[in-house]
Amino acid sequence: MKLGYLGPKGSYSYEAAKAYGLEAELIALNSFYEIIKKVELDEIDEGILPIENSTEGAVTSVMDGILKTEHAKIIAELILPIRHNLLGYVKDIKDISYIYSHSQALEQCREYIQKNLPHASVISCESTSLACSLVKEKRDGFAAIANLSSAAIYGLNVLNEGIQDNLLNQTRFVVIGKSEKRLAPPYKTSIAFSCLDDRPGALYNVLKEFAERDINLTRIESRPAKTELGKYIFYVDLIGSVEDESVKEALIIIKNISSCLKIFGCYSVLKE
Amino acid sequence: MKLGYLGPKGSYSYEAAKAYGLEAELIALNSFYEIIKKVELDEIDEGILPIENSTEGAVTSVMDGILKTEHAKIIAELILPIRHNLLGYVKDIKDISYIYSHSQALEQCREYIQKNLPHASVISCESTSLACSLVKEKRDGFAAIANLSSAAIYGLNVLNEGIQDNLLNQTRFVVIGKSEKRLAPPYKTSIAFSCLDDRPGALYNVLKEFAERDINLTRIESRPAKTELGKYIFYVDLIGSVEDESVKEALIIIKNISSCLKIFGCYSVLKE
Repeated sequence: MKLGYLGPKGSYSYEAAKAYGLEAELIALNSFYEIIKKVELDEIDEGILPIENSTEGAVTSVMDGILKTEHAKIIAELILPIRHNLLGYVKDIKDISYIYSHSQALEQCREYIQKNLPHASVISCESTSLACSLVKEKRDGFAAIANLSSAAIYGLNVLNEGIQDNLLNQTRFVVIGKSEKRLAPPYKTSIAFSCLDDRPGALYNVLKEFAERDINLTRIESRPAKTELGKYIFYVDLIGSVEDESVKEALIIIKNISSCLKIFGCYSVLKE
Repeated sequence: MKLGYLGPKGSYSYEAAKAYGLEAELIALNSFYEIIKKVELDEIDEGILPIENSTEGAVTSVMDGILKTEHAKIIAELILPIRHNLLGYVKDIKDISYIYSHSQALEQCREYIQKNLPHASVISCESTSLACSLVKEKRDGFAAIANLSSAAIYGLNVLNEGIQDNLLNQTRFVVIGKSEKRLAPPYKTSIAFSCLDDRPGALYNVLKEFAERDINLTRIESRPAKTELGKYIFYVDLIGSVEDESVKEALIIIKNISSCLKIFGCYSVLKE
């Protein structure tokens, strides 16, 4: 089984891929977009993508990317604790002029950077491991924010450990693929929809269908519909399977009172 | 009146500041964080902040920043069309190795970059105008994404116009300050709250109070509570004033069935 992740080796996605795909062949790819595309084109079997972080929230490029999929489904999720570290070669962190990392990691360390490195320029790269390889090349004056296994892989010194703004920093990853595999309950189902009109209560009417059936929503997130300001697509994760009578009923009604209902998949919660 | 904006001169925030504060003294600041802090400390009277874009969605650092304010309120909003351009000195865009811009602008041109500049490294800066000043300094191989007035101010050539992924790309700015000024209706009120528990329908019960009173919500956005995954703070914008009987009633009930209800302000919609 070929499992794509955001490379190069050492990234948080690499850690997630190892935890999920024990026997998989791990394929390092350059962007979330490339992972989604290769699953759609059957060039890889599955892909692992960070979708949400407990400090910085939605990974918007992943959310927008999976909305456009035609064949790939969400087939699993897993949650990993994320601990960021400042890595580089400088003797004193005051000598850091540039900080490289993935934009999500930079945002998760926003307060640390403001407080400790206010004069450094913050540069976002495609991945935390790519940031490490750039710092290895550029050396003095540069630092990366990444995990400890990247520090080991790229031979960077650990300048400061656990620098994320919140101690309990977790990222939720989803696995996309074409063959659904519902292992054991609890199941989660992920959907997206737009409201039909701007009437008061349009979203409320959709949520009512879940509330009346005691279906718990674990996440509701809005993304712009990308047409005009004030038009949104709502992403909802709920506890339950598409096979459950109550979920089935709710989704049939919601299909009629919303537009563009998309079911991303129904999957087991692997770790929590 | 001193009005802070994300500088340097030429940024989209500068355009918004000019449109809003016709007679204000415009103060260029380095970050959204600094703008919010200076309003809180009375070092400037008001600050203008982008809060949401029709393509890329929430400006998360601004949303997280205003949640922490103690005194500053949202006192106005305005919406500006945003048209991005590729600026630099190269003869052929294939010669661009680095693209500089604010992270929001980069995300708003994500598809353009993937298609036209797949091999360029994307580097996010504190502002689009800062990106232009860096490209001016570094010249060959570098390009910035910014507006046309930045091109003029920093003397960059326009390599490609209107490169945002969506033709109708708009940003909603809010103005924060300590003296509320409700000019003329329509009014908007912005609030945030957390749900008390994880029961099915906790969010639904809050939205019910608005729906039953025919109060239209123009936006609902979740941000992580930054405690653990699955805990959120909901930001809601509604049409109406805190002086309206129906809004007053709804907010009193919501205060009891939610936690940490915060009212960011009640303000006139200046342009739409």
